[in-house]
Amino acid sequence: MIVELVSVGTEILLGNIVNTNASYLSEQCAKLGLSVYYQTVVGDNEDRLTETAKMALDRSDIVIFTGGLGPTKDDITKEVVSRIMEKELVEDENAKAKIKAFFRDKEIPENNWKQAMVPTGAMVLDNENGTAPGIIIENKGKTAILLPGPPNEMIPMFEDKVFEYLNNLVPETIYSRMVKVCNVEESKAELMVKDLIDNQTNPTIAPYAKTGEVHFRITAKAASKEEAKELIKPVVKELKKRFGRDVYTTKEKETLEESVIKLLKKYDLTVSTAESCTGGKIAATLVNVSGASSVFKEGYVTYSNRAKRKLLGVEKETLRKYGAVSEQTACEMALGGMDSAAADVCVSATGIAGPGGGTPEKPVGLVYIGCCVNGDISYRKYIFNGNRSKVREQTVVKALTLLRDSILDYYGE
Amino acid sequence: MIVELVSVGTEILLGNIVNTNASYLSEQCAKLGLSVYYQTVVGDNEDRLTETAKMALDRSDIVIFTGGLGPTKDDITKEVVSRIMEKELVEDENAKAKIKAFFRDKEIPENNWKQAMVPTGAMVLDNENGTAPGIIIENKGKTAILLPGPPNEMIPMFEDKVFEYLNNLVPETIYSRMVKVCNVEESKAELMVKDLIDNQTNPTIAPYAKTGEVHFRITAKAASKEEAKELIKPVVKELKKRFGRDVYTTKEKETLEESVIKLLKKYDLTVSTAESCTGGKIAATLVNVSGASSVFKEGYVTYSNRAKRKLLGVEKETLRKYGAVSEQTACEMALGGMDSAAADVCVSATGIAGPGGGTPEKPVGLVYIGCCVNGDISYRKYIFNGNRSKVREQTVVKALTLLRDSILDYYGE
Repeated sequence: MIVELVSVGTEILLGNIVNTNASYLSEQCAKLGLSVYYQTVVGDNEDRLTETAKMALDRSDIVIFTGGLGPTKDDITKEVVSRIMEKELVEDENAKAKIKAFFRDKEIPENNWKQAMVPTGAMVLDNENGTAPGIIIENKGKTAILLPGPPNEMIPMFEDKVFEYLNNLVPETIYSRMVKVCNVEESKAELMVKDLIDNQTNPTIAPYAKTGEVHFRITAKAASKEEAKELIKPVVKELKKRFGRDVYTTKEKETLEESVIKLLKKYDLTVSTAESCTGGKIAATLVNVSGASSVFKEGYVTYSNRAKRKLLGVEKETLRKYGAVSEQTACEMALGGMDSAAADVCVSATGIAGPGGGTPEKPVGLVYIGCCVNGDISYRKYIFNGNRSKVREQTVVKALTLLRDSILDYYGE
Repeated sequence: MIVELVSVGTEILLGNIVNTNASYLSEQCAKLGLSVYYQTVVGDNEDRLTETAKMALDRSDIVIFTGGLGPTKDDITKEVVSRIMEKELVEDENAKAKIKAFFRDKEIPENNWKQAMVPTGAMVLDNENGTAPGIIIENKGKTAILLPGPPNEMIPMFEDKVFEYLNNLVPETIYSRMVKVCNVEESKAELMVKDLIDNQTNPTIAPYAKTGEVHFRITAKAASKEEAKELIKPVVKELKKRFGRDVYTTKEKETLEESVIKLLKKYDLTVSTAESCTGGKIAATLVNVSGASSVFKEGYVTYSNRAKRKLLGVEKETLRKYGAVSEQTACEMALGGMDSAAADVCVSATGIAGPGGGTPEKPVGLVYIGCCVNGDISYRKYIFNGNRSKVREQTVVKALTLLRDSILDYYGE
């Protein structure tokens, strides 16, 4: 079954946004055992979209369109694809009700009603995070799947509805599992499993590099789910053996921050954060886990030296002698953040995110991360590559990793 | 002059990597006033690459290929494109010498010599960061530009050689400007400029919806940059008239948080943050602005009631009577956050990000945002749609917007 991805949006052609939808959907298709032969991006232009959609529906079995479902005049994906699939647009009462509910008591702009028009006989997918419903049109052996462009609307819709729909189209069972590893560089991780990857047939192992993490997807084809699971089991076991405790989860959706919150709950620990260069991003990442409130106590964003002293009790002498970006300051921040919040654990970060502020001794990208567990302090030093936001992003992942490692060390796991 | 981007590589179709080359090249083309009509990704497959390349060279003037120039059997971009452009491959002495130099004293793998073959009459672009040279082929009014796939090879090569080459080809000038608006919904914004969009020819106006913001790109074509600028001027003026002070910038790259930091600097104000449901995300967003350190004092992540009382001085009675998610708490958080940090301004947020914690009176998505400027307190109430991370994302943008509005109100702007 051949799948083609068509992303609609002039903003992608102008380079305003990176087309992450295509990589997300490609990965999902790989998981389902569906082959993606083409990804195309086309602008909000009727002629070119028509030409592209026609060709895609001609050469592929399933075409997934993203974008162009909004309420504006520019948004023409639904209109163009319905015409090609020979389906008329009719008003959908359910979609209309959803739009009303979305706006609650607010006045509904006239052009939003355009989003309640759906092709006859199409499946309508509710959008829990926006007003544009998704649409699945089937005709003459071809399937067009229309999804909204914003990833925070598209991804939940895909997970909730489209994955299952596609899974039912696949003749043989494909099953996959994730092994997520922290604390290891991509190239090293790949070397560590090179022999496995070179000899793979079924199951296959595909590494995905994420910021500060490597994820391995193990995919098996078999007649039944049970059989596929049996094929996968020894590979997961082998990866766990090779990466040891750095495997933080084998659950598809579990994130590093979720695994850290779980660990804190397991040992009945409360946590606080003391952040300089990350400016609250470590706290925000932890708090993004639903239910973090039971372990997260307080977070301090101490950008200035004065704040580091006042809120975290960092010694004036430490700042003077070693500077704000130093192992000593990182350690005092972690200890002080634990004390101030009366928490069991505190993680800290201080560094030079750039673009300014670097010196030959302390270059841009230099970051110290500290962690204190019941008074036991440890720290790590990094020199990260990349721009300001990339440096901060890597710092957050490494801070969560140190937090995890420190707890595991403390409890001898 | 129409440009098309073709990225070659099965790893993109599997979702292993995000196609950042396409967004980089698109942005460069936009800067050069070249219109990109299509981006296509195709795998390392001869038939499909041939079909894709033929179509691209047929419908576009310039096609930029990335990837598939490596030494392996899978790398076929040069061979396929040369055949379509009717150019034979011949050994290039200079390219050969470069390969030798790259490997220094190491043994050169046999298949690397494949990279020294270039189409007759082609321009060869040295690769300073790898062994695959770039190639520019011109024939019958069409141009094919072949660049290596790894961004750290492709980008320097583009900057050093291709940008200049393309710049010399452009006959007319394209110039565009951005007008960025906060405080308005996408559909409402579009209605407010519907007449302008309906009557547009040159310049054109394209709206882009961002979370809590709308951006308008105004693009003009003319014989010179000055002429294009003159065409754009009245449209920018008209948009500013219609959206008033909600236009926070007309600079291409300026973000809402940057405009807020600029405003704080303008009035010599320091700022602090007091966050509950956003968990540090408002602080992190402000601190993402390089140079925020001069205005950002302290940030408090007060997830628990205890922390709200201890760090921000929220009254026990307020929390008991109105609850943590209330206008009263939001206002006391803002006032307390200003006092504790000895800052001039403080912005606060408290809400129910979900998925749990909602009640009929206080549903998931209910958020109060507070702001205090030198003791003047204001607040706004929102009921956001979407999941936990969407609610928090919208809260951050609305908090920055209230912060901006409060300062403008205070100074009567």
